[in-house]
Amino acid sequence: MKLVTFKRAPEAGEEIGAMQGDGTVAVLTPASDPAFASMLALIEGGEAAIAAANHAISSAERLPYGKIVICAPLPRPTQMRDTIGFEKHIRQARANTHIFGRIPARLDPRDVEVAPVWFEQPIFYKCNRLSISGPEAEVRWPAGETHLDFELEMAVIIGKQGRDISASDAPGHIFGFTIFNDFSARDKQFRETVGGLGPAKGKDFDTGNALGPCIVTIDEIGNYNDLRMQARLNGETLADGRSSEMHHSFERIIEHISTDETLYPGEVIGSGTLGDGCGLEHGRFLEPGDQVELEIENIGILRNTIGPRR
Amino acid sequence: MKLVTFKRAPEAGEEIGAMQGDGTVAVLTPASDPAFASMLALIEGGEAAIAAANHAISSAERLPYGKIVICAPLPRPTQMRDTIGFEKHIRQARANTHIFGRIPARLDPRDVEVAPVWFEQPIFYKCNRLSISGPEAEVRWPAGETHLDFELEMAVIIGKQGRDISASDAPGHIFGFTIFNDFSARDKQFRETVGGLGPAKGKDFDTGNALGPCIVTIDEIGNYNDLRMQARLNGETLADGRSSEMHHSFERIIEHISTDETLYPGEVIGSGTLGDGCGLEHGRFLEPGDQVELEIENIGILRNTIGPRR
Repeated sequence: MKLVTFKRAPEAGEEIGAMQGDGTVAVLTPASDPAFASMLALIEGGEAAIAAANHAISSAERLPYGKIVICAPLPRPTQMRDTIGFEKHIRQARANTHIFGRIPARLDPRDVEVAPVWFEQPIFYKCNRLSISGPEAEVRWPAGETHLDFELEMAVIIGKQGRDISASDAPGHIFGFTIFNDFSARDKQFRETVGGLGPAKGKDFDTGNALGPCIVTIDEIGNYNDLRMQARLNGETLADGRSSEMHHSFERIIEHISTDETLYPGEVIGSGTLGDGCGLEHGRFLEPGDQVELEIENIGILRNTIGPRR
Repeated sequence: MKLVTFKRAPEAGEEIGAMQGDGTVAVLTPASDPAFASMLALIEGGEAAIAAANHAISSAERLPYGKIVICAPLPRPTQMRDTIGFEKHIRQARANTHIFGRIPARLDPRDVEVAPVWFEQPIFYKCNRLSISGPEAEVRWPAGETHLDFELEMAVIIGKQGRDISASDAPGHIFGFTIFNDFSARDKQFRETVGGLGPAKGKDFDTGNALGPCIVTIDEIGNYNDLRMQARLNGETLADGRSSEMHHSFERIIEHISTDETLYPGEVIGSGTLGDGCGLEHGRFLEPGDQVELEIENIGILRNTIGPRR
């Protein structure tokens, strides 16, 4: 299923539904199953809830996709992490950090030193799970930021609670996947990370974590470790690669994070940015009114516009 | 009020109550007010819920404190961050990172370079809000860890939603304070932080974030920017200082974090570790069976024991 959270009108309440091939959304009505009350309830309902949803679709109310307001599919993740998974992104982004005075001059990406630990284990931080925005949302400019950026990522949503999940068992703990635009305030980020605790205000600002347009369940996504990923800025393609370029697979990421640490339904984990998948790698940053489109094969397009400078 | 979350027996459900001067807990019964269903519900209920609790206490059921199971006061924070607030801790901890090969030899703490940005703004990361444990809980040893440690911190709990909160308005957004033991897996921490995204597995493991024993509401805590803080390991005092040693006040921390970023009721923010307040600063680490007691003036004592090595 391709699951969405939507509203019938901008001020209406959130509902959930399943996108159909004919351009409609089949509405999952809470009255018929409490697991249809929200995306998180559906995820927490496990296999029984998914089976019930599949059954309910045939007789469900249908609404035209174009006539409803599509929200972030999971508006309030249980928790949210982001890994840094693509070597090309690390090399190209760090090569350009002379812009922020982190290195004396631009480097050749081939000369960037990648920490050996990155090759050995997934490296990650935790995002603000409460600063989520959805498709078509306007991203709020963080006050005073001079280098606002986007990041093209794929995100996995945990479906089943577990600890010490092996890579081979990981698929059984995955609910599905969506697209993640990790909007980033680069001067705040490079200023604070000198402090040694990783990114904070550089990643955390209201609307800064865009998710959508839908969650594709694991049974329908295909080979999630090898999907085409593209980023377009005002229609111009800036990135075109594949999730297979991730150094650690989603299964290995789940294995690492769940070591000694229980993962719960509704937790979201980002892949990190695809190579070429952010402005920093190109030395280009966002301007008010810019439109960013992220596309991932078998999921769809996540489009956002940039709000006025503040 | 000194508010606790408790169970009548280890397998019973969680209830909330207010500690009384006579060694009893006044039980806040959900039937009399839905805001008494959980600590988070009470916090989200705002001033009206606090007034209702104050009113309910006089006629409430009383249970002897020693006969109930005290849990983490807020078992599932809305979100959780930790700042690094004490210069003495930074200097003494980093001086000893030769243990992990981060520097060639032990430094004199006076020779540790503290990043200028630390003096200018609070530096923080986000904790795992789902790995909370409470008073008297046994801390689960992260598999293979060779340098398990504790950290003495004070934590503020947000009571009222807000964004762009000024330092002068910050007290109006504070619900109260508790004690935070930020148990840390040091070899995992110093291994992964080379990756540049801050601490993750070094801080995130089930039971690794101990909170308690109670939340003292802001109207009863006194001058929270100047409270005595102590840490004892198996009865030996290792740290004895004051929250006034924080470089940035709690108000300034709230101002910084809430910039462009909405804070919600039930979010928890740690002060960072008091100087001398962790084993790393002393070159001493935890062993199975060790007992760690953290005490903060006007709050109480948070005691935990260390589980078997795994």
